[in-house]
Amino acid sequence: MISERALIERLAASAAVRAGVALGIGDDAAVLSGDPAMVVTQDVLVDGVHFRRATASLGDIGHKAIAVNLSDVAAMGAAPIALFIGLVLPDPEQLTTADIDELYAGMESLAGVHGATIAGGDTTTGPALILAVTAVGRMASGVAPVRRTGATAGDLLCVTGSVGAAAAGVLVLDDPALAAGVAQAAALRDAARRPTPRVGAGQHLAAAGVTAMLDCSDGLALDALRLSRASGVIVELDLADIPIARGVAEVAANATRDADLLAATGGEDYELIVTVAPQRLDAARRELEVPLTPIGRVVAGAPTLRVMRAGEAVSLSSLGWEHPVGDAERR
Amino acid sequence: MISERALIERLAASAAVRAGVALGIGDDAAVLSGDPAMVVTQDVLVDGVHFRRATASLGDIGHKAIAVNLSDVAAMGAAPIALFIGLVLPDPEQLTTADIDELYAGMESLAGVHGATIAGGDTTTGPALILAVTAVGRMASGVAPVRRTGATAGDLLCVTGSVGAAAAGVLVLDDPALAAGVAQAAALRDAARRPTPRVGAGQHLAAAGVTAMLDCSDGLALDALRLSRASGVIVELDLADIPIARGVAEVAANATRDADLLAATGGEDYELIVTVAPQRLDAARRELEVPLTPIGRVVAGAPTLRVMRAGEAVSLSSLGWEHPVGDAERR
Repeated sequence: MISERALIERLAASAAVRAGVALGIGDDAAVLSGDPAMVVTQDVLVDGVHFRRATASLGDIGHKAIAVNLSDVAAMGAAPIALFIGLVLPDPEQLTTADIDELYAGMESLAGVHGATIAGGDTTTGPALILAVTAVGRMASGVAPVRRTGATAGDLLCVTGSVGAAAAGVLVLDDPALAAGVAQAAALRDAARRPTPRVGAGQHLAAAGVTAMLDCSDGLALDALRLSRASGVIVELDLADIPIARGVAEVAANATRDADLLAATGGEDYELIVTVAPQRLDAARRELEVPLTPIGRVVAGAPTLRVMRAGEAVSLSSLGWEHPVGDAERR
Repeated sequence: MISERALIERLAASAAVRAGVALGIGDDAAVLSGDPAMVVTQDVLVDGVHFRRATASLGDIGHKAIAVNLSDVAAMGAAPIALFIGLVLPDPEQLTTADIDELYAGMESLAGVHGATIAGGDTTTGPALILAVTAVGRMASGVAPVRRTGATAGDLLCVTGSVGAAAAGVLVLDDPALAAGVAQAAALRDAARRPTPRVGAGQHLAAAGVTAMLDCSDGLALDALRLSRASGVIVELDLADIPIARGVAEVAANATRDADLLAATGGEDYELIVTVAPQRLDAARRELEVPLTPIGRVVAGAPTLRVMRAGEAVSLSSLGWEHPVGDAERR
């Protein structure tokens, strides 16, 4: 089957960029011309593919649909302004009015936290619950959107917050026995069901002059590989430096998984991956609402991801990664 | 089952309008603050609900998904800038790569005609072919978006182009025998499969100072009723004045339907319905790329649609309309 990445590349190849658009397909969001520049992004979530009603409430699903879009706006450095909700609803035996109200409440609550307005959308019936959310954001005047293409040899590779919690949360949701003795089990489940987009941090980092930024929706390793390809550089990621969320190591041990691997490849964390010149790291961290941790560096050379553990090169697949880097393209 | 309109009203009631948004849920498009103002709209099309692969090619479906969104942008008076395509694809046995290329070509071709860029989107697998398209448009500087709320007693009710062709085309697509002796059968089928959004006309009419505007996607009668409710006025529609597309009367006769009724209620024409002060009609028509035909007038009073035929009040249901005005809320 043709991959989603190939489909998007096909669309990108057929789509001419015309007046009014500064950046088309290929980054976390498109950029409309003007000052302030506007960014627009869209994500589609399908029942059974991107969420499961067995382990997520309708409120969780609404939250997540907004979160993934706000995360893309944040990854450009923009402030979210408006959200548009395309909703495909299955027949009412599967979804009551109370369910729909809970879905809306999950969306509106997170939109409100970030000052965004649910300003429109469309509702129709169809074969499954599907949410197609579009988010529009606005850059601060004079601040350029941060693309994936600006990473430069010598830059540090950094990540906000901590990673691995969502992946560990998914494991625990699937098999509650894996939470045995894990004090942070509830927090891990929440990380999987109600991710936190780094909206304020994205704006701060853009203003602080980071060279490239994207969100970590598909795991550090895969998203760092994307960064390397977009910027035309080697990205080195050191597993030993990854800030792993508390409780992840315990869940990984219960599941007989490698904790570093889970943190590096689990995905769904919605942290921000940035590259920054070393001399600008302190400025980028100043007044940032979350930790910003160096986890590697940018090196000149043919684009690839180089994974290290405490200075030694390692192969992710030797650690048990089932999706070789480059084949696991999904959103 | 709860109607789509009721669902959208529920969402609107729960959604606070915050900074940066001038107009939220309830018109053809939302309006973002600023000069020039930006408008944003979203429509979701589901296989089997909004199109049928038995009677529409993938290119037709791509065209239509773009057309319905450009029509909403036009109905605010904006120029389309960017389009975002959320695509849910069924398994590849149902849809080949060539099919997907044809779908993209149908979208890109119409976008190009109107100078808009397909600037992003998301692609995922799911249970059916679903297109969730978001369109962003920009007003001319100093021109305010035209809402549905501005119709004023004394205004003329007008429509661009002609109506009925899409509804007649659907009849002919369903039953080719109804095309017997109809010279315009091919044009009617095209009207149903590849509607023309009134993009240039919408911008012209906004600049010419029409008082209210919306697109005629659900039929003149239902959309005129919406206009009456949004503006708080009586809207009178005279069936005898409706510019009916050529060939519609013949198809209606073959189908033993009332041609006026088909034209007034068939929908999917994507013409623009406007109200305009009588003294501004000539200015609105000047250099307009399509005819603008008066089909009724705006009267003070409790919001309702008053249907006339050559000056006499008639009831649409007496002519065979199966969807009483007010109950047939769909997009």
